[in-house]
Amino acid sequence: MTGATLSSILEDQTLAFGRFAQIGRAEAAAMLAGLYEHSDWIVEAALQDHPFASLAALKRRLVEVVSDSSREQRLALIRAHPPLSAKAKIDESIAKDSRSEQSLVGLDKCSPEEFEALTTLNAQYLEKFGWPFILAVRGPRGLGLSRAAIIASLNRRLAMPAEEEFEECLRQIHRIAEMRLDERLGLEPTLGSQVWDACEALAKFSEDTDGLTVTYLSEAHKNCAALLRQQMQSAGFDEVFEDLVGNVVGVYKGDPGQSGSAVGACKRLMTGSHYDTVRNGGKYDGRIGIQIPIVAVTQLKKTGIRLPFDLEVIGFSEEEGVRFKCTFLGSGAVAGKFDLSVLGATDANGVRLDQALQAEGRIVNPDSLKSIAREPSDYLGFVEIHIEQGPVLTQQDLPLGAVTSINGSARYMVEIRGLASHAGTTPMTGRRDAAAAAAEFMVELEQVARQMPDCVATVGQLQVVNGSTNVVPGRVTLSLDLRAPTNGQRDELVQKAMTLLEDTCHRRRVELTCQQTLLASAAPSAPGLQDAWEASIAQLGLPIFRLPSGAGHDAMKLHEVMPQAMLFVRGENLGISHNPLESSTNHDLQLGCEAFLNLLSQLSLNPHHPNA
Amino acid sequence: MTGATLSSILEDQTLAFGRFAQIGRAEAAAMLAGLYEHSDWIVEAALQDHPFASLAALKRRLVEVVSDSSREQRLALIRAHPPLSAKAKIDESIAKDSRSEQSLVGLDKCSPEEFEALTTLNAQYLEKFGWPFILAVRGPRGLGLSRAAIIASLNRRLAMPAEEEFEECLRQIHRIAEMRLDERLGLEPTLGSQVWDACEALAKFSEDTDGLTVTYLSEAHKNCAALLRQQMQSAGFDEVFEDLVGNVVGVYKGDPGQSGSAVGACKRLMTGSHYDTVRNGGKYDGRIGIQIPIVAVTQLKKTGIRLPFDLEVIGFSEEEGVRFKCTFLGSGAVAGKFDLSVLGATDANGVRLDQALQAEGRIVNPDSLKSIAREPSDYLGFVEIHIEQGPVLTQQDLPLGAVTSINGSARYMVEIRGLASHAGTTPMTGRRDAAAAAAEFMVELEQVARQMPDCVATVGQLQVVNGSTNVVPGRVTLSLDLRAPTNGQRDELVQKAMTLLEDTCHRRRVELTCQQTLLASAAPSAPGLQDAWEASIAQLGLPIFRLPSGAGHDAMKLHEVMPQAMLFVRGENLGISHNPLESSTNHDLQLGCEAFLNLLSQLSLNPHHPNA
Repeated sequence: MTGATLSSILEDQTLAFGRFAQIGRAEAAAMLAGLYEHSDWIVEAALQDHPFASLAALKRRLVEVVSDSSREQRLALIRAHPPLSAKAKIDESIAKDSRSEQSLVGLDKCSPEEFEALTTLNAQYLEKFGWPFILAVRGPRGLGLSRAAIIASLNRRLAMPAEEEFEECLRQIHRIAEMRLDERLGLEPTLGSQVWDACEALAKFSEDTDGLTVTYLSEAHKNCAALLRQQMQSAGFDEVFEDLVGNVVGVYKGDPGQSGSAVGACKRLMTGSHYDTVRNGGKYDGRIGIQIPIVAVTQLKKTGIRLPFDLEVIGFSEEEGVRFKCTFLGSGAVAGKFDLSVLGATDANGVRLDQALQAEGRIVNPDSLKSIAREPSDYLGFVEIHIEQGPVLTQQDLPLGAVTSINGSARYMVEIRGLASHAGTTPMTGRRDAAAAAAEFMVELEQVARQMPDCVATVGQLQVVNGSTNVVPGRVTLSLDLRAPTNGQRDELVQKAMTLLEDTCHRRRVELTCQQTLLASAAPSAPGLQDAWEASIAQLGLPIFRLPSGAGHDAMKLHEVMPQAMLFVRGENLGISHNPLESSTNHDLQLGCEAFLNLLSQLSLNPHHPNA
Repeated sequence: MTGATLSSILEDQTLAFGRFAQIGRAEAAAMLAGLYEHSDWIVEAALQDHPFASLAALKRRLVEVVSDSSREQRLALIRAHPPLSAKAKIDESIAKDSRSEQSLVGLDKCSPEEFEALTTLNAQYLEKFGWPFILAVRGPRGLGLSRAAIIASLNRRLAMPAEEEFEECLRQIHRIAEMRLDERLGLEPTLGSQVWDACEALAKFSEDTDGLTVTYLSEAHKNCAALLRQQMQSAGFDEVFEDLVGNVVGVYKGDPGQSGSAVGACKRLMTGSHYDTVRNGGKYDGRIGIQIPIVAVTQLKKTGIRLPFDLEVIGFSEEEGVRFKCTFLGSGAVAGKFDLSVLGATDANGVRLDQALQAEGRIVNPDSLKSIAREPSDYLGFVEIHIEQGPVLTQQDLPLGAVTSINGSARYMVEIRGLASHAGTTPMTGRRDAAAAAAEFMVELEQVARQMPDCVATVGQLQVVNGSTNVVPGRVTLSLDLRAPTNGQRDELVQKAMTLLEDTCHRRRVELTCQQTLLASAAPSAPGLQDAWEASIAQLGLPIFRLPSGAGHDAMKLHEVMPQAMLFVRGENLGISHNPLESSTNHDLQLGCEAFLNLLSQLSLNPHHPNA
């Protein structure tokens, strides 16, 4: 099998867009009229570059036209949209597309309370921002949001700063256009919708009735594992099993004939992510990194394609560390790095980890762990797809990004002790104000971090201990979280932060205690695998955008034993994660699937991938 | 009676110092040898200006010689002192004075535990600072500290920054010299010791067994009132009574013949302060403002002196607002400003203020209050002596200061709301960090306040709400306390602070809520009365030092109806107050008594004082 053959999976999509690419510019413009509400200038400007190599490239160009336009033009674009109205159906001034979208979600069937809420909130919104509230009411899956969800969204966005809300409206407008474009061209993000639906199915299992909570070895966790096995079996994996620590593994065998192996066995490519969640977490964190490969294998199986390597997809059982405060239990075991000392850790009810495992008949000991640990030399490496969990791709208007490194980090708990004294009687110059020292440190630390590319520094906890309005602060505690793409940069950031902290405290004659609570190594992407992801993105007609991962991922564990590289998929709502608002669209997930298939194609061209 | 006659009260002191002033410089130097441990250069340098006008002027010069010397000389002075040692008695290298001082407090009678503690702490102290621990072991009254108090002091000062501890050692050395000087010259701060002892007697009554707590209408409070009445009666006041709200009032009648009054009645001078305390408060806060005038009247009565005005001394029953959260109940009633709406206020046990008053047979209503409210035109004004409750006089090495104004103030509760987001995945530039906004505001506010003379700005409470190490702060609450000597300066400070806060939040795209919780007017001193205090200080041979009061005092209430001016007496331990460490020496209290007698003398020269 070759990369060319693999890409035939996406033939339907390619053909449909290919037909559009072949028509003339004027006809294309006519097809796309109304894509942007009363603003056909956007389509006309974009189509100067017609024909486009891909749907993604066309969409990208449309986004660029808007972002390159003047603020007045962008404001006019937003204002061209009708407000979300219960009366949409009868208002003839509203464009047909908008009418049908608003009607789809039943805005014309509002209860009196819903009508009242919408009317009031719309008025407040218009009053605050000076433009109407824009929401792609068809939602992230294109099937329509509930009226309750629409009202909640309006409520939430009413609290945003104007500049951010302006940008969010433009993003919603592009999302509306993206779905209208599908209709015009007869396209559908089938694979993305499959991934979205699979995530939805998995999210049916939760420990809480309200939000999504799946912690290690809970009933919901077991149900998730069972569903993953079933999904893998349906997809056509050759082997599906659950290992001792709860990892769900599916292997789609390669073709040794293609692999060029002398011994009749393929190398393996490992991929996957975790299926546990934080409390009240999101449906996509971890899980799209399992579901996208499963959907890809569905396609491989359906078209009878075999790769020149085994594809091993793992749903890691534990990454978040919620229940036992120990992270990476699943990927740690696979990497052969399971730390037996964590078996004594207890959950909130006092249940020990080893007891919880034994209750399931899982006997974890050095011998049994050996059977899980992979032999790194069997592997080409590990790739992981993950929702970004940050705002960078959203702000760049890009659906995909190539991860350069999983940032290393260091954490500290800091205590600053000055002299508590009377706020009225202690002159400014004689003070030993612990909070003033903390504030000066924070302001300067922010500057330091800003000057170091891709580094972040955060004071997330901060408190004047027993503070009173009329007492100069005598004691402050604060937390410090420093992250950088390489260990060298991390150490430089740590050193600068510590010098700054010590100098500030010395200058202000306050005392300092600083305790390191975490030191984690950076996991830079293997250049070869990162290159392959970048090529896969470029193949989609999208610009290559590189970013580090500020959060930890299973790939950090695998990094200890084999080359790894990650792909990030944009998250909606400014990339919020560990939160029910975490969201991804079927269109972005579609691109994730396509990029993964492209990656398999890239790696097929060179199965003995020379790596990190 | 004239001022000259009044000053005869201090004749003993004056004569003793006068004898010293008459001897030659060499003999004087010989008398004062050893005043400073192995450092007679200090006495020799100071005596270049011999003879001095007063004891206070000599002491002041000694302090100046040390503060004008090089750091090496000051360090050598500190190092010339022996460590506090349980073996002091047998160590022949230690100067005689130090041996007898250490022996006085029984350092040679240490238990094994005390010996162990002293040895260990002394070693740690020497290790940290590089010089021995210096403490005037005779204490603030000259009678010797307990060994437990010495060890506690050592423990506390071990935690100080080096620069402050260096200064504190020099202050202790001057205190040691001050007491040695008394011995050499045969002087004694008799009046100061009387005040100190009276404060000690008053402090026997407390609601708590541990610390000093005297809240309004408690058993301890009633006992204090009874003791004050008794002290006033013993002192020889002509009238002593307790009024409806618990103020203890003593009137020492003036001589209408001297007053020049046509109607045979004198004008009155009111003085006094409060006798209630905060929880676990100090023994001197408020109380020296009652005890110094009582001791002064003792002297007037003993010498048969009558002033050309009535002297009315009031122990105000309530100033701190601890029990019912309403402040100035005592002075408010005297000023005719008792707010009847506070009668419904409840204490922590749900007891209403009016119930608590009625239980004592105190019926507070508009009619009964009329009998307390003074007629302002009967008064020359109000003067109040108070412990500074701040570090300024200590840092200036000055025992007394003339108050220019009681600062006006404004307080706010501020909430800053940004966007909580992942500390790892949110780049520095995309953040809406509520804590970073607070920190920037705090740093700039500090600069603003520093540039406005005698103004202070304090963020005393500060907290990231529900902060986590790995989450960019989404919400911060902080308190803001702004004070300035005049209402104009206060309003300017408020305006600058608010502009700064709004600009910072706007720039950082975070939202702001700011609620004013207090706005209090400044109470500038009446120029005539302030002049009289300054003349009284100058008469002692001390430099005139002016400072505002950052804290509120009873004089603020009287300010609403009559001229007022305050005198501050230095507090030990960097002026700490509302704390058991609050302290004043009998020598400083002696100067307070002398300054008050001088003030009476000043005002006697012009009984129809032209005022504010």
